[in-house]
Amino acid sequence: MRLLNALFSPRRVALVGASDRAGTLGNLLARNLESFPGEVVPVRGGGSLLDVEGEIDLAVVAVPAHAVPAVAADAAAKGVGAMVVLSGGFAETGADGVALQAELVAAAGSVRIIGPNCFGIQNCDLPLNASMAAGLPRGGGGISLVSQSGAYGMAIYALAVDERARFAKILAPGNTCDVTIAELLTELADDPASETLCFLLESLVDGRAFVERARLTTPDKPVIVAKTGRSEAGARAAASHTAALAGSEAVWHGVFRQAGIVEVRSGQELLDVARALDGQPLPAGARVGIVTNSGGVGVELADLLADEGLTVPALSAPLQDKIRDMLPAFASAVNPVDVTPVWSRYAELYPGLTDLLARSGEVDVVIPVLLQRAAMDTPTAEALRDVVLALHDDAVGVPVHVCWVAPRDARPNADLLQEAGVPCFEWPARTARAVGHAHRYAMARERTAPPPPVPQRRTTPTPTDPAGAAEVLAAFGVRTATSTLCRTVDEAVDAATSYPVVVKVAAAAHRTELGGVRLGLADPDQVRAAATDLLAMGPVLVQPQLSGVEVAVGAMRDPVFGPVVMVGLGGIWVEVLADVAFALAPLGRLEARDLLAGLRGFPLLAGARGAPPVDLDALADVVVGAGNLLLAADDVAELDLNPALATQDGAIAVDWKITRDGTP
Amino acid sequence: MRLLNALFSPRRVALVGASDRAGTLGNLLARNLESFPGEVVPVRGGGSLLDVEGEIDLAVVAVPAHAVPAVAADAAAKGVGAMVVLSGGFAETGADGVALQAELVAAAGSVRIIGPNCFGIQNCDLPLNASMAAGLPRGGGGISLVSQSGAYGMAIYALAVDERARFAKILAPGNTCDVTIAELLTELADDPASETLCFLLESLVDGRAFVERARLTTPDKPVIVAKTGRSEAGARAAASHTAALAGSEAVWHGVFRQAGIVEVRSGQELLDVARALDGQPLPAGARVGIVTNSGGVGVELADLLADEGLTVPALSAPLQDKIRDMLPAFASAVNPVDVTPVWSRYAELYPGLTDLLARSGEVDVVIPVLLQRAAMDTPTAEALRDVVLALHDDAVGVPVHVCWVAPRDARPNADLLQEAGVPCFEWPARTARAVGHAHRYAMARERTAPPPPVPQRRTTPTPTDPAGAAEVLAAFGVRTATSTLCRTVDEAVDAATSYPVVVKVAAAAHRTELGGVRLGLADPDQVRAAATDLLAMGPVLVQPQLSGVEVAVGAMRDPVFGPVVMVGLGGIWVEVLADVAFALAPLGRLEARDLLAGLRGFPLLAGARGAPPVDLDALADVVVGAGNLLLAADDVAELDLNPALATQDGAIAVDWKITRDGTP
Repeated sequence: MRLLNALFSPRRVALVGASDRAGTLGNLLARNLESFPGEVVPVRGGGSLLDVEGEIDLAVVAVPAHAVPAVAADAAAKGVGAMVVLSGGFAETGADGVALQAELVAAAGSVRIIGPNCFGIQNCDLPLNASMAAGLPRGGGGISLVSQSGAYGMAIYALAVDERARFAKILAPGNTCDVTIAELLTELADDPASETLCFLLESLVDGRAFVERARLTTPDKPVIVAKTGRSEAGARAAASHTAALAGSEAVWHGVFRQAGIVEVRSGQELLDVARALDGQPLPAGARVGIVTNSGGVGVELADLLADEGLTVPALSAPLQDKIRDMLPAFASAVNPVDVTPVWSRYAELYPGLTDLLARSGEVDVVIPVLLQRAAMDTPTAEALRDVVLALHDDAVGVPVHVCWVAPRDARPNADLLQEAGVPCFEWPARTARAVGHAHRYAMARERTAPPPPVPQRRTTPTPTDPAGAAEVLAAFGVRTATSTLCRTVDEAVDAATSYPVVVKVAAAAHRTELGGVRLGLADPDQVRAAATDLLAMGPVLVQPQLSGVEVAVGAMRDPVFGPVVMVGLGGIWVEVLADVAFALAPLGRLEARDLLAGLRGFPLLAGARGAPPVDLDALADVVVGAGNLLLAADDVAELDLNPALATQDGAIAVDWKITRDGTP
Repeated sequence: MRLLNALFSPRRVALVGASDRAGTLGNLLARNLESFPGEVVPVRGGGSLLDVEGEIDLAVVAVPAHAVPAVAADAAAKGVGAMVVLSGGFAETGADGVALQAELVAAAGSVRIIGPNCFGIQNCDLPLNASMAAGLPRGGGGISLVSQSGAYGMAIYALAVDERARFAKILAPGNTCDVTIAELLTELADDPASETLCFLLESLVDGRAFVERARLTTPDKPVIVAKTGRSEAGARAAASHTAALAGSEAVWHGVFRQAGIVEVRSGQELLDVARALDGQPLPAGARVGIVTNSGGVGVELADLLADEGLTVPALSAPLQDKIRDMLPAFASAVNPVDVTPVWSRYAELYPGLTDLLARSGEVDVVIPVLLQRAAMDTPTAEALRDVVLALHDDAVGVPVHVCWVAPRDARPNADLLQEAGVPCFEWPARTARAVGHAHRYAMARERTAPPPPVPQRRTTPTPTDPAGAAEVLAAFGVRTATSTLCRTVDEAVDAATSYPVVVKVAAAAHRTELGGVRLGLADPDQVRAAATDLLAMGPVLVQPQLSGVEVAVGAMRDPVFGPVVMVGLGGIWVEVLADVAFALAPLGRLEARDLLAGLRGFPLLAGARGAPPVDLDALADVVVGAGNLLLAADDVAELDLNPALATQDGAIAVDWKITRDGTP
């Protein structure tokens, strides 16, 4: 039985630690499991799974921590499919708990474990509530949620209940002693009921596997991740929970973007984006049509949409004419379409204009703003709902997202819309953010590529000396500047065949900081003087002096994600602006170009200030090659091409450094 | 009687257009005015203000547009203090309406007018509800709101009612035919009841006056502005409402920041910041202490606070020990302080820890996160409220802001806190944003300076030729590179006394684009060659070649704000990154330094990459001088110093251009 089924669609469930005593975890779980349509077998104090007759797919465990390894051993002996261990008192409590958790894993053998120290799991459709939370969110939706934070995850789904979102499956993995987050992603990606995959994460012990799997999933299903612990204090607090490395925010951002993951900053935003995407058509472009009964809120929403990279274009003259025919005098038909406060006509105008805009071909998203009186009017909400359902039925691929600006007591009308699958977002900021994410996800789907093949492993030690390293780089398609290694002044003068030249200390470490580089040497005398100085520090390299846009390219082993590449524009761009971007290796040429295009300094590569654009394909190939080298050479810790010079004719590294494990 | 009193504290009010017919504006107003404790004199159809016996401080006008000018004439004849014209059908409807509005203003003489086409005004304390909105927000607070958008303003205060905010005064100025936004700011700044001034603006016709007044107000009272119409579509829509220039977002941002205005992006954020500031101590620094019952939400909040420039520092060992004594095992005392899900102890731990942190001297803000069970527990809310009130009583200057993460049906506990003056914000994002603004406002108060004196007017036409312009610039403290104007090649060679020199075309317009600058000329031959080329385009300047960090300094007349200065780092910083900043002129040296410090490229001035820092005071004086020149010389449209070179020894303009009105 595959893991997903054992967890979420068990035929028979055993509750180990079942109790009749109110206030106990075993009692709470017994009550929560009452709605399960299959059989729940209670195993009470003193009893054992081995005493249960017949097969058990899922064991829900609520006994004290010290008793859990024995339960796991019984589960293994009985051939249980999976265990969800809600009991706390394991790795989260210190060294003794870590040992107990290891004992649990060992005892469980091939039985897969969720937890320990977790809130549990829920299948909202079955229903199965094997969790501490009273009640389930509505089923019938495609949203599945994995939350590393149990309590906060529960708060998010309490919000989901308030906002009438429909879910498929929910899981809080707790200490994640066995089944990893990446494995959960794999399972949910294959689950037809889970159409929108949400993760609330503080850390990842299997970051690379998660991102690799996400990269394959996002072309079909959105993967939305709220990764917290981005800040120093956040990371400190998260580490105290999960004992996993937080990693660099820039790396997380880069590999998430590459994988097409929708990256959000909070649990509330996670749920908003899930509602904006689940069961909704994806916007085919950035054009938004707004229908509003207040000019002021229309202006604010247009601003906030622009902040998200969306546009609110003026409608065509013929469409404006059509709209003007429907509107009162002095209303605006331009976009935002402002119907003015004609209360009595809202129930006609909102659905009519939404339908007209959605079918016009002039916008990719329609946002009706229901403000105050428009929100309080139930016939308006009902008519708007019916029009949106008809648009869905007619497969009109333009999503309709409602911006809701109304007092609390008008919520029943929002619920009416949301329950029918029309997303309602409170106030313009949340609306614009959710629609912005939907648009970015739609764009990312078109961009995301399956990973290229991993290059063959090198079997010999990788050289780190300049000439040897240059040879290896050449094998990975990375050109390096012609260099002559010189040990005497005369050798250096002879090596300078066409001027100007550069003389630099051959040892790359701290070369610049030590003043080990002399640029623009115009004649043999200058070379002689420079070489005399620098040879005191060791052998030197003589290179022709090249020009081009300075780019820093690197590849390294990230503690969370493994081999990654880094690009940045040289000099002040990296040093003052920290304008660098990361991606998982291996990556393809188009992905590398996309990485370069995301730099703030990209205009310098694309041809700013009248300069010709550089050969972006050649530069992208340097990035690809850097990543491939790290994948092929296990002994390389880090590769640093800084700078590489990009011109309209190609890209070439003028400084390069390979760092092997354990070597500086 | 001063305007503020006539509007908000009238002794007698006349309602012109009063009606007994339900559904009419005159009837709605009559009902809304019923709660006014003074006398309301109805003037019905056919009647006139002139028939009313005794004095009228405020006339509330709801007659059809065409009849309004006659009412205004009557009001003038009767000596009414002020009129609020709610009737629509004026400038918002086109050319005829513009004419009618002009007629209204003329007829009113010295009677001050709010409106026409406005939602009206409210004094929540009196109470006076001379508006279309049913009901008033709670009084007894210091929040006063001016909203250019009537309908959206009403939605914001409906939100305020839901969130239990307390207000002082509310005004929707509508078409703003007479009393300006700046005048309203002046009135409210002088009103003791109005402690937190909020503006929802789409445009400003008197931008300079508004900002000048705000600059004087913000050291005492926060001025919070949501300026919409920032985006292209937003500006287009806003212009159709207000027929005023939108202006450049960068200029708005610069002058707002200089004036210490709290700039927000939405109406909801406006109200959140108002609640965070009104009646609360200001944070003395950026250190936040968090008390939470969920590690996950604590981590997210710490991240979002870091995005706002705040910190969540680890607490001292002695304080952690004290906290650990209060907490269960495995709880975290570091910060965020995580009490874990010990439901039964929330009512003791939340107030106890909040009190301890607030009095510890280790944090500047305390944020208790009430999540789920903690929020649902009324004794916890009550005890927390009592502790915060005691902190206020003891004048502990550390604000306590509650982050509220709970289902809707727990709201009564949030209301209980908010009604007692303890701000509650839903979910971490709004909490962090509001606290971030409070912190920035506290910092801005220390930075904001009264404007320096305006320089004396020049009375002669300002020269634009290089030498004449240099002389004028010198008078304003702006040094320019020594330049010799040459009309022959020999003159140019003679002018080059120490090498390298620069030869450039004297006419500044498009000099660079036309290839009119030759740098780094090392000897007389090179000067001769360059001069021969360039003299074909006109006279040339010969200058010594200087070095330094390139800075662009400008001064211009902004359509909204009048004379402003601009600074940016030269070259790619301006051209690729648009890294420029604006401020109102005149400005002082410290303000100019602050402007420079806000540039992303500022590290280059402060001494990046091992370079010595430039003389920031000298560079600031160039900025100050540029602004003063524009204020002193009415005939100058624009001044452009690009580049000025900043070094550790000073700052000097090497290119300068004065543009006179009507001249290129």
